[in-house]
Amino acid sequence: MERLPGFRDFYPEPLPHPGLWSADARQFIFEQWRATAQRYGFREYDGPPLEPLELFTTKSGDEIVGQLYNFTDKGERTVALRPEMTPTLARMVAAHERNYKKPIKWFALPQLFRYERQQKGRLREHFQFNADIIGESDLAADAELIALLIDTLRSFGLTAKDFIIRLSSRNAWQEFYDARSQKSEVRSDQAHVFFQIIDKLERETPDESKRKLGLLGFSLDEVNEFIKSGTPTIELAAILKNLAAGGLGEFVRVDYQVIRGLAYYTGVVFEAFDVQGEFRAIAGGGRYDNLVKLISGGKVNLPALGFGMGDVVLLELLKARNLLPKFEAALDAFCLIEDETLRTESLKLIHDLRGAGYAVDYSLTPAKSDKQFKRALELNSRHTFKLERTETGELVVKLKKHPARKEIITNPLELAAKLSAEE
Amino acid sequence: MERLPGFRDFYPEPLPHPGLWSADARQFIFEQWRATAQRYGFREYDGPPLEPLELFTTKSGDEIVGQLYNFTDKGERTVALRPEMTPTLARMVAAHERNYKKPIKWFALPQLFRYERQQKGRLREHFQFNADIIGESDLAADAELIALLIDTLRSFGLTAKDFIIRLSSRNAWQEFYDARSQKSEVRSDQAHVFFQIIDKLERETPDESKRKLGLLGFSLDEVNEFIKSGTPTIELAAILKNLAAGGLGEFVRVDYQVIRGLAYYTGVVFEAFDVQGEFRAIAGGGRYDNLVKLISGGKVNLPALGFGMGDVVLLELLKARNLLPKFEAALDAFCLIEDETLRTESLKLIHDLRGAGYAVDYSLTPAKSDKQFKRALELNSRHTFKLERTETGELVVKLKKHPARKEIITNPLELAAKLSAEE
Repeated sequence: MERLPGFRDFYPEPLPHPGLWSADARQFIFEQWRATAQRYGFREYDGPPLEPLELFTTKSGDEIVGQLYNFTDKGERTVALRPEMTPTLARMVAAHERNYKKPIKWFALPQLFRYERQQKGRLREHFQFNADIIGESDLAADAELIALLIDTLRSFGLTAKDFIIRLSSRNAWQEFYDARSQKSEVRSDQAHVFFQIIDKLERETPDESKRKLGLLGFSLDEVNEFIKSGTPTIELAAILKNLAAGGLGEFVRVDYQVIRGLAYYTGVVFEAFDVQGEFRAIAGGGRYDNLVKLISGGKVNLPALGFGMGDVVLLELLKARNLLPKFEAALDAFCLIEDETLRTESLKLIHDLRGAGYAVDYSLTPAKSDKQFKRALELNSRHTFKLERTETGELVVKLKKHPARKEIITNPLELAAKLSAEE
Repeated sequence: MERLPGFRDFYPEPLPHPGLWSADARQFIFEQWRATAQRYGFREYDGPPLEPLELFTTKSGDEIVGQLYNFTDKGERTVALRPEMTPTLARMVAAHERNYKKPIKWFALPQLFRYERQQKGRLREHFQFNADIIGESDLAADAELIALLIDTLRSFGLTAKDFIIRLSSRNAWQEFYDARSQKSEVRSDQAHVFFQIIDKLERETPDESKRKLGLLGFSLDEVNEFIKSGTPTIELAAILKNLAAGGLGEFVRVDYQVIRGLAYYTGVVFEAFDVQGEFRAIAGGGRYDNLVKLISGGKVNLPALGFGMGDVVLLELLKARNLLPKFEAALDAFCLIEDETLRTESLKLIHDLRGAGYAVDYSLTPAKSDKQFKRALELNSRHTFKLERTETGELVVKLKKHPARKEIITNPLELAAKLSAEE
């Protein structure tokens, strides 16, 4: 029986073949995400993987349904597997924000789902690092969030040679748009259509973009000129200054080509890309000051901003840059039971060591000495040890560190200390 | 907009009110589960939360569909949110077992889903610690798995006064059944019906059990007598001896009342209960030697055993025994920016500390001194510090440990070392 198309199994390392997904690499990425968020004072939250369909259509319109894993449950509710975390966050914040001091700095590591019928072979789920700041309209919040994004990528060993944050602003484009619509050259109510065209500039042919822009009264040339200028607006300059103060200036550049497709962004937007341009965006985010109000039905109005970073592109990038550690069983010790009359005593020692926090394994059944030793090496155990009875009837432990160094411990109680000391 | 009934939101501590679920408590439980499994040499795996419906009906029969979150996806596939992990594990192992040395010792922390239409207010999802050993038929594997279960509960601070493993065996009941059917008192082909009656003994009235047993040719008295005897079979005696060798004897007792409802168990079965009998089972498991063969369509035949421990009952028990730690923001330091002309220098210091692994926060916007300090206390920061310029123009850091102890550091570069030294 096969798993569903677009879903992943995660296996322990070493992987039987390179096409499989690694549970260890996934956990490594989760741990870095969590640790960096916590260093920035972000707190973890989570919501249900299944939500009312309406939560997502309220935010993104009915057209999103075509990309959702949605269905009707046994209680006749229209529901969907979450395609993104932000609506859930807005719902949770709206319900209890009065009890949390602002700014709220929260993160989550949700699994997200998309069902696109036509795209064979593409994943239908991924994990995403979501970090958001809620209740702070000052640009210092935008800088803080972008700093977290940069330091998250740096925590994996990526440098300014590997990635860049392309910083842009819906406000900058709005000003560009308004300046022309005031001169009556263009219609004043089509800004969202204009943003969609800008968002697709890199993916569509110049002729197609030119035609679409022309319908709104813009020329492709003036648009390209604005992008090329790259002149920071006052708000972007403030963010660049803040990041430079933290020593992060080299990781960011203004790039008005970035505008983010989603309708709900309201201010600064940004995306993280690999410098060599081999991969899709590593992360993306921005301000969405109206969303909490929208999701809460007008009850709660809080400015907000956030980003999402998926596990799939990040993993591809880390592999390409050779930045994944070697994942091993990470056993502290393997107990060799060569004398079956000492199995009971060996079990006692194994359980004591495990109780003291050490990762210890052994052969569950009697096995030849060399087979046990081979197993210890396969599991990459940092030590092997065995109980032996001396001629005078006392129990001693023989400890071997790998690569090989032997030692005899006359008091078995000293073994735990030795396992640490040998590090 | 509300979340779906039976699903949970997880909020950061401190919780606004006690009815909410804690993301910090969840993460604490996950970390203990993962750490204990790793000490026992178990490796992590995971599969998709959504699987073909057939994966679950193959194992448990069509009657399970009534309890599943199942639906038809846009590709006309009948699918279900996983109600348990074992079928996914069996599928994954069957696909790649040749590349993993036996015994395979794997664990997972999946979220599982059940849809029972009638039960209002009951949760429809929970998280479960699943640990399994595959490819070892020796009873040492059963003992190893039960030892892991015991030490997992002990890792939370629970003792033999808090919980007990009730150990039983399908084989013991099979022998009991066979001994009578050979004497032609009962039909020989109704063992699974008999097991179901035993499983329900604690939940049904004696009269009802008596009637049902009578239909198969058994008396309730002889069944109760067998349960009361509690005489360990040879296999159970071997497991008890093994656990006693590891110093875990006091955590287990034979209790034939336990038989586990699921059809696929084949040998030793067990459940963990709180000693005071206040809660539902904390965990349960046993041998399922035929399941991998069933799921793989006969291609792979491996003995197997495992247990599952849910997060909900465990959390209730830990709360009742006062064993949950106090969860706090766990900030190493909060930077007070009292002199706005030093914001740039403060940002540099904050980022340097974060880069060195410390959890540091600060006020994103200018705020009164006492308000910043109050915020630091609310976040339970272990230190506060601020940059100040001396009369001679040099920058110094003033560090305060909480509860209060003040210090002046003339070289800002020494701050990181101080944060550690002050622990």
